Amino acid sequence: MRVVFPFSAIVAQDEMKLALLLAAVDRTLGGVMVFGDRGSGKTTAVRGLAALLPPLKVIAGCRFNCEPGTPCEACVGVCRHTGKAGEAPAPVVDLPLGATEDRVVGALDLERALTLGEKAFEPGLLARANRGFLYIDEVNLLEDHLVDLLLDVAQSGENVVEREGLSIRHPARFVLVGSGNPEEGELRPQLLDRFGLSVEVTTPDRLADRVEVVKRRDAFDRDPAAFVELWKAKDTAVRRRIKAAQGRIGDIVVPDAVLEQGSRLCMAVGADGLRGELTLLRASRALAALEGREAVTDADLRKIAPMALRHRLRRGPLDEQASTARIDRALDELKAA
Amino acid sequence: MRVVFPFSAIVAQDEMKLALLLAAVDRTLGGVMVFGDRGSGKTTAVRGLAALLPPLKVIAGCRFNCEPGTPCEACVGVCRHTGKAGEAPAPVVDLPLGATEDRVVGALDLERALTLGEKAFEPGLLARANRGFLYIDEVNLLEDHLVDLLLDVAQSGENVVEREGLSIRHPARFVLVGSGNPEEGELRPQLLDRFGLSVEVTTPDRLADRVEVVKRRDAFDRDPAAFVELWKAKDTAVRRRIKAAQGRIGDIVVPDAVLEQGSRLCMAVGADGLRGELTLLRASRALAALEGREAVTDADLRKIAPMALRHRLRRGPLDEQASTARIDRALDELKAA
Amino acid sequence: MRVVFPFSAIVAQDEMKLALLLAAVDRTLGGVMVFGDRGSGKTTAVRGLAALLPPLKVIAGCRFNCEPGTPCEACVGVCRHTGKAGEAPAPVVDLPLGATEDRVVGALDLERALTLGEKAFEPGLLARANRGFLYIDEVNLLEDHLVDLLLDVAQSGENVVEREGLSIRHPARFVLVGSGNPEEGELRPQLLDRFGLSVEVTTPDRLADRVEVVKRRDAFDRDPAAFVELWKAKDTAVRRRIKAAQGRIGDIVVPDAVLEQGSRLCMAVGADGLRGELTLLRASRALAALEGREAVTDADLRKIAPMALRHRLRRGPLDEQASTARIDRALDELKAA
Amino acid sequence: MRVVFPFSAIVAQDEMKLALLLAAVDRTLGGVMVFGDRGSGKTTAVRGLAALLPPLKVIAGCRFNCEPGTPCEACVGVCRHTGKAGEAPAPVVDLPLGATEDRVVGALDLERALTLGEKAFEPGLLARANRGFLYIDEVNLLEDHLVDLLLDVAQSGENVVEREGLSIRHPARFVLVGSGNPEEGELRPQLLDRFGLSVEVTTPDRLADRVEVVKRRDAFDRDPAAFVELWKAKDTAVRRRIKAAQGRIGDIVVPDAVLEQGSRLCMAVGADGLRGELTLLRASRALAALEGREAVTDADLRKIAPMALRHRLRRGPLDEQASTARIDRALDELKAA
Amino acid sequence: MRVVFPFSAIVAQDEMKLALLLAAVDRTLGGVMVFGDRGSGKTTAVRGLAALLPPLKVIAGCRFNCEPGTPCEACVGVCRHTGKAGEAPAPVVDLPLGATEDRVVGALDLERALTLGEKAFEPGLLARANRGFLYIDEVNLLEDHLVDLLLDVAQSGENVVEREGLSIRHPARFVLVGSGNPEEGELRPQLLDRFGLSVEVTTPDRLADRVEVVKRRDAFDRDPAAFVELWKAKDTAVRRRIKAAQGRIGDIVVPDAVLEQGSRLCMAVGADGLRGELTLLRASRALAALEGREAVTDADLRKIAPMALRHRLRRGPLDEQASTARIDRALDELKAA
Amino acid sequence: MRVVFPFSAIVAQDEMKLALLLAAVDRTLGGVMVFGDRGSGKTTAVRGLAALLPPLKVIAGCRFNCEPGTPCEACVGVCRHTGKAGEAPAPVVDLPLGATEDRVVGALDLERALTLGEKAFEPGLLARANRGFLYIDEVNLLEDHLVDLLLDVAQSGENVVEREGLSIRHPARFVLVGSGNPEEGELRPQLLDRFGLSVEVTTPDRLADRVEVVKRRDAFDRDPAAFVELWKAKDTAVRRRIKAAQGRIGDIVVPDAVLEQGSRLCMAVGADGLRGELTLLRASRALAALEGREAVTDADLRKIAPMALRHRLRRGPLDEQASTARIDRALDELKAA
Repeated sequence: MRVVFPFSAIVAQDEMKLALLLAAVDRTLGGVMVFGDRGSGKTTAVRGLAALLPPLKVIAGCRFNCEPGTPCEACVGVCRHTGKAGEAPAPVVDLPLGATEDRVVGALDLERALTLGEKAFEPGLLARANRGFLYIDEVNLLEDHLVDLLLDVAQSGENVVEREGLSIRHPARFVLVGSGNPEEGELRPQLLDRFGLSVEVTTPDRLADRVEVVKRRDAFDRDPAAFVELWKAKDTAVRRRIKAAQGRIGDIVVPDAVLEQGSRLCMAVGADGLRGELTLLRASRALAALEGREAVTDADLRKIAPMALRHRLRRGPLDEQASTARIDRALDELKAA
Repeated sequence: MRVVFPFSAIVAQDEMKLALLLAAVDRTLGGVMVFGDRGSGKTTAVRGLAALLPPLKVIAGCRFNCEPGTPCEACVGVCRHTGKAGEAPAPVVDLPLGATEDRVVGALDLERALTLGEKAFEPGLLARANRGFLYIDEVNLLEDHLVDLLLDVAQSGENVVEREGLSIRHPARFVLVGSGNPEEGELRPQLLDRFGLSVEVTTPDRLADRVEVVKRRDAFDRDPAAFVELWKAKDTAVRRRIKAAQGRIGDIVVPDAVLEQGSRLCMAVGADGLRGELTLLRASRALAALEGREAVTDADLRKIAPMALRHRLRRGPLDEQASTARIDRALDELKAA
Repeated sequence: MRVVFPFSAIVAQDEMKLALLLAAVDRTLGGVMVFGDRGSGKTTAVRGLAALLPPLKVIAGCRFNCEPGTPCEACVGVCRHTGKAGEAPAPVVDLPLGATEDRVVGALDLERALTLGEKAFEPGLLARANRGFLYIDEVNLLEDHLVDLLLDVAQSGENVVEREGLSIRHPARFVLVGSGNPEEGELRPQLLDRFGLSVEVTTPDRLADRVEVVKRRDAFDRDPAAFVELWKAKDTAVRRRIKAAQGRIGDIVVPDAVLEQGSRLCMAVGADGLRGELTLLRASRALAALEGREAVTDADLRKIAPMALRHRLRRGPLDEQASTARIDRALDELKAA
Repeated sequence: MRVVFPFSAIVAQDEMKLALLLAAVDRTLGGVMVFGDRGSGKTTAVRGLAALLPPLKVIAGCRFNCEPGTPCEACVGVCRHTGKAGEAPAPVVDLPLGATEDRVVGALDLERALTLGEKAFEPGLLARANRGFLYIDEVNLLEDHLVDLLLDVAQSGENVVEREGLSIRHPARFVLVGSGNPEEGELRPQLLDRFGLSVEVTTPDRLADRVEVVKRRDAFDRDPAAFVELWKAKDTAVRRRIKAAQGRIGDIVVPDAVLEQGSRLCMAVGADGLRGELTLLRASRALAALEGREAVTDADLRKIAPMALRHRLRRGPLDEQASTARIDRALDELKAA
Repeated sequence: MRVVFPFSAIVAQDEMKLALLLAAVDRTLGGVMVFGDRGSGKTTAVRGLAALLPPLKVIAGCRFNCEPGTPCEACVGVCRHTGKAGEAPAPVVDLPLGATEDRVVGALDLERALTLGEKAFEPGLLARANRGFLYIDEVNLLEDHLVDLLLDVAQSGENVVEREGLSIRHPARFVLVGSGNPEEGELRPQLLDRFGLSVEVTTPDRLADRVEVVKRRDAFDRDPAAFVELWKAKDTAVRRRIKAAQGRIGDIVVPDAVLEQGSRLCMAVGADGLRGELTLLRASRALAALEGREAVTDADLRKIAPMALRHRLRRGPLDEQASTARIDRALDELKAA
Repeated sequence: MRVVFPFSAIVAQDEMKLALLLAAVDRTLGGVMVFGDRGSGKTTAVRGLAALLPPLKVIAGCRFNCEPGTPCEACVGVCRHTGKAGEAPAPVVDLPLGATEDRVVGALDLERALTLGEKAFEPGLLARANRGFLYIDEVNLLEDHLVDLLLDVAQSGENVVEREGLSIRHPARFVLVGSGNPEEGELRPQLLDRFGLSVEVTTPDRLADRVEVVKRRDAFDRDPAAFVELWKAKDTAVRRRIKAAQGRIGDIVVPDAVLEQGSRLCMAVGADGLRGELTLLRASRALAALEGREAVTDADLRKIAPMALRHRLRRGPLDEQASTARIDRALDELKAA
């Protein structure tokens, strides 16, 4: 198993780390899009978080990660269920460049077709990612067709396969995490909107931070095991916080006034559709859960707003920076009002 | 089975809901095209309506959904008819992104070809959608070729397959429901004309509506079963209205004066072809049936006109909004005359 | 069998109906191209005419529709001739969108290749259309390559197949009927010239006609069988006229003066090539036959000229309308001379 | 067998007819390119000439049309030679649109590969055309790659196949006849240069000619056999002239003065390369042979020059017409000198 | 085995030779990109270095070059391990133009699939390059997709294969060496950043050097064995230096002041991301090791800076030359400060 | 076997003939690129030279043309070596248009794969050309990808195959001769540089030469055998000169002064890289060998310079002619100095 750089050892990049934690707490948030140059540590953070996720209850032998007690109908004829419930690490599936569509959505199981003459389904990456994370490094480099397909599945939570004489549907509920570099070409607004949260990472500009990053990276590369051991306690603390928040989130209260404040904010900044509002609500709730509080407050909303709305503003000739400023200004005006 | 958001729980969006109900009452209306941003609830509405449709009488084992007593000729050698009539939910077929042409129109049944050396037909999605609905989310993202093919079948009510040594034709009568986002590229006027009705959905701009949408959505996502139970009575009422209207529509009277008024209106606004007039006639009749009346009136025509004609006007440098205004003006002038 | 809208029940559209009747009387006319918006009834007319065609004498079991007594050489090894002459409806083959080239021209019979190890020919749509009609709805949407191929076969009357190790030629004489929408892109002049006649259909602009069209269509859609019964007598009369004209056409006299008048007209309007003159001659003769006369007159020429020449004029910045006007003017000048 | 329109019955078009006759007399001339609109009778002329060609001495059973006594090496393992010499009509191979590259150049014989496990060559159209004609209607519509390949073979007289594990070369000496429409796109100068002669055909502009063309065509179409019978004597006379010329051409004297005059002419008009001069020499010799004379004269050169050089001039902004004028002027100046 | 031109016999080109040596000492440097015209000896140098690399400890029979004691999980079912440790030359894999993606990443082992009906993995070039070098001559000529894939693997050190029903991941840690010609098209900044070091080679401009290059090359080409013998001692010395440096590098001290100086330099020249700093650190350390010292100094930094940072500057309308100047200036200013 | 036009019978074109002779004497020169219009005799010259080459010592049965005593490793499992040394004509492989990549580089031997279930290599044209010539007519028409591949192999002298599960490398040392037409598109400078020598051929502009060319060509075409007989003695003399030069070239002295003069010349005209100098050295040596001298002189350099350097100058808006002039000027200046 690959040793990964500890999540806790990441220097600075607070917004990115928070967004990933929120997505881990409430998987229905709609995923996280991380913008930034190559080399700014996006991939490191995602892999680090993956190592922290609490394990999952699964049916032993199920290739769709079904929940014990409720196997999906696609299981029949595909998995060899022992029927017993077990536990497994939450899947974090990496979409490699060069993955073919048949491996992503699943396809005819050629081995069984050729050997047994049976038309069986070979589950793909979408099945494997069920109830976990699907990570796409450099969304910009994927072909549009595949991106559309992934977002469609991410939102519906179901993978519908109609190809090669197969007609299958199975659950595919996962947190989609994408990374991209705005310099390598824009993403369409329609696609951006499908991500719950978006954050930007940049190279630190404090000398001390930069030296610290280089030192820690070099230390990790020279002796990974020792470095991980060093940060183990901090990582364990984060894992516990996520688990506690997941248990508590169902009970968090969202006052109507906060809800209305959210809608007003979305209208003020001119965000299209209602996904922004829904995301504000959910991410604020996840934040309250993460911080161990019982109710969402206006302060949660203020903290969440930039990452929930920044990528949903109608763009003029304005850049990302300006988007964040617009949200801040709207927040100030609402407060003043 | 997937639990869907109840049709009755949809906030506002009255025009879209009416159009879908009319299409459910008279399947020959030519389908509905729903325009709107992602996140405005188009898909939710279509899936909600699907759950309300009265069941269909079918031949048990027929893969083309043939009506009891009149199996199509393509059945022979494909279906294993029990011959017995049965009942089934009206099919609502989802065209997934990534569906290949062979799965849409049907293709050579490879399993039988390889095992038995027989050249048999494997019915596709068009067969499965027969007598039901075919839903295409984001028509804009389908390749032109597939869209042309679907519209061709939708209008002729027949799927003609000439490929891989097969030469098959079978009935494929379905209500085509499409959704699209005008920002992601225009649809060709020729294609738009093939949809009977078109409606636009936008994000609600009343604060109370927005909060209500977010609240209901959140409630549904957190406990789907409880939420559906809450709206069950309202949904059942709608189902009964559809069924009653279907029974009554054959007897609705359309006065010649109303018919002429419809033609006059189409000439006044400059709608090409006669599909607009035919749609006006049928949708008005469906509206009268839905409202339990015995004859179509000028008021029905007025109510239907925008959704029947809006997408059939020759476009100048005018936007959709302007199209609706032109229809209203024409209606006013006809009334005044 | 599909019930089609009766040819006689078509309101107005006289030029289109005449062109189709002429092509039915003399199949060597070179086919008909129908221009017009979707929804103007082009397809309805073609299918209506198909239902009226007199039956064909064929060899029972021949898949190339060969004439009794003169089977083509391609029959050997493909058809299982009983040898007996029989009768069959004239084939009206629909070229579906999505037809693959192998189904159009024919291909290796895979079933026989795999089962018996024989290299046999599987006839395509061109074989099936032999001695009948080939209808292409929306020529604009076919790929250029396929259109070139179809026109080539249509003119030579022979399908030459050189593919997959096959080397076959068989007769493929059919009337090509195309429909197209000028708004969806121009056809190349070279292609237009291959059609014998061209007509334009437009939405009727008389209120009474429009109401009548809508009423008849609605009546047909609600009870097809009853509607067909209503128009049966009229349709039968048309079928008799076609058959009589086919019998009589060989004896129609074409005076040299008329022939010269035709050539003069073509030179006056500047039609390229001699296809225009040949078409004028043949279509005028077919018209005389249809009207039961014994000789062609200048009046026939005048009636035929627009549909035979309109699509053969060199285009300047002039539209179709202008083409018709130019022909009329030339006719007037010739008359005056 | 298809009945073709008699070569002798073609009205006017003298230059085209002469060029085709010359190519029939001396197959090494390099083929003929015929320019003209569709409908101007290009195809009719080529097919008419084909019917006139004297038969060929062949080895019975040879699929490469090898000459008796000198079978090519590719025959081995492909043909089932009886060894006996026989006679066959000169092949006139039609390159159909839609022919695949494997059928043109030849390919692996799949039947033998699958049945006997042998890797044998299945000869293509180039083998079939050996020692005959290869006719490409509408060169413009062929893809560049195929045209390059055909011209390459036409010039080298050999078909070299390196594909699918095959490594074959066989003779492929044929007269290439192409037709094209300059309005459908220019041919590259490099390609034009590979054709020995080029001619242009246009619609006749004399009224009497036009009427005559239409009358003959109509007569042929109505009763092909009778029409052919009518022109049989004239066609037979042409066949005899070709045969006589073929026998006599080896003895025709070309005076050095004529040869030099040819070179001077080419230099004067600025034709690239030496193919023009070689063609002038050969075509003039063929003309003398056709007219039964014993030596080539300056008059032959003058008659041949336009068709041998017209397509080899460097083009400025000048059209074809201007090319012909330049050649005439150069001829006049040489004469004057 | 191919005899290669000795590394030591390369005239001039000191920067390129140093960069290659550093990459050989510390394989985690991220590879070397060599810019220069064809004919400037890039390929010669890479192949020469390859011949100098110290051998590798491997498991006999392992097709992934796994380290003895830690076979990767992909080995199972693919390699026939003897289990014994052995020694092998460090692999230097050449990516040939025309290599297909399946050979690069690995693919289904067709032989085993067809013979044994097993779905086994056939390792590709990435597996073979594990723990060695992967050399891509003319990166510009590879398709973008393949380059992205290679860089992705180079950085993660792992090859993830999701294709043809296979789902494999195996270590693929190699030094990527690329060569390219800036005149044949720019490389994207994102890709450049993935290479640790970049150097430029140009044709020598001293007459004596040029004559020497030509003489040595000619001598080598005429008698390779003799020439190699001549330079053997010098090459052996270089090999020893590399090995010694590899052993010593873990103990080299990097003072914090040097580290900070590196960060300051990167900030001053405006290099994106932190890869530049990490590379500076590592390459300086490798340089100290190569020169047998115990600690890194500012002088090492100054020597390394151009090759570590030159390709990471934001480009304005400035050329490579200018980039080097900017780095020099920044170094001077830091010193002065 | 094909009778080819004798090399000695080619009129004028001295530079082209010399370049081909030099390449025949020293195969490491890097091949010859011949520029000129179609019809200027490029192909004729190459084929003529091929017929003159001295035979090769080979291992009987070797499909890679290996030298007796040193079979390549790829032989194993592919060739059925008798082991005996034999003699064979030097291969002159023609790259036909339409050759597929698998035939060029070699591929999986399908016959053996299917029959014996073995994965064996089927050598391609590159193997067949080993130790001989590879001729590409019209380099411009080959796709870039194939040209890159050929030049890569031509330079490295080795064919590396990584495809279809094969991993093979075998020697492929050949003289690459290309012809091209500058009017059909430029070749990239990078590619030109890979050819050792380049020459231009043009249509002769002396009347006597032109008449002579036409006469000889016509004589050859009418009776090839007789014509070849006529020139046999001259061709034999040329063959002897080549063979003598090949034997003598190893002993030719190249004075340092001449070497320096070559480098000075390259620097003066601004040729990139050092290939120009290496080619000057080798071609001058081959010239001295061909002329039976013992040492290279400045005069050899002057004669060789245009064909060795012309295609290596940086191009401004200057044409080929200007390139030659620049070289002449530089030569004059060096002499004067």
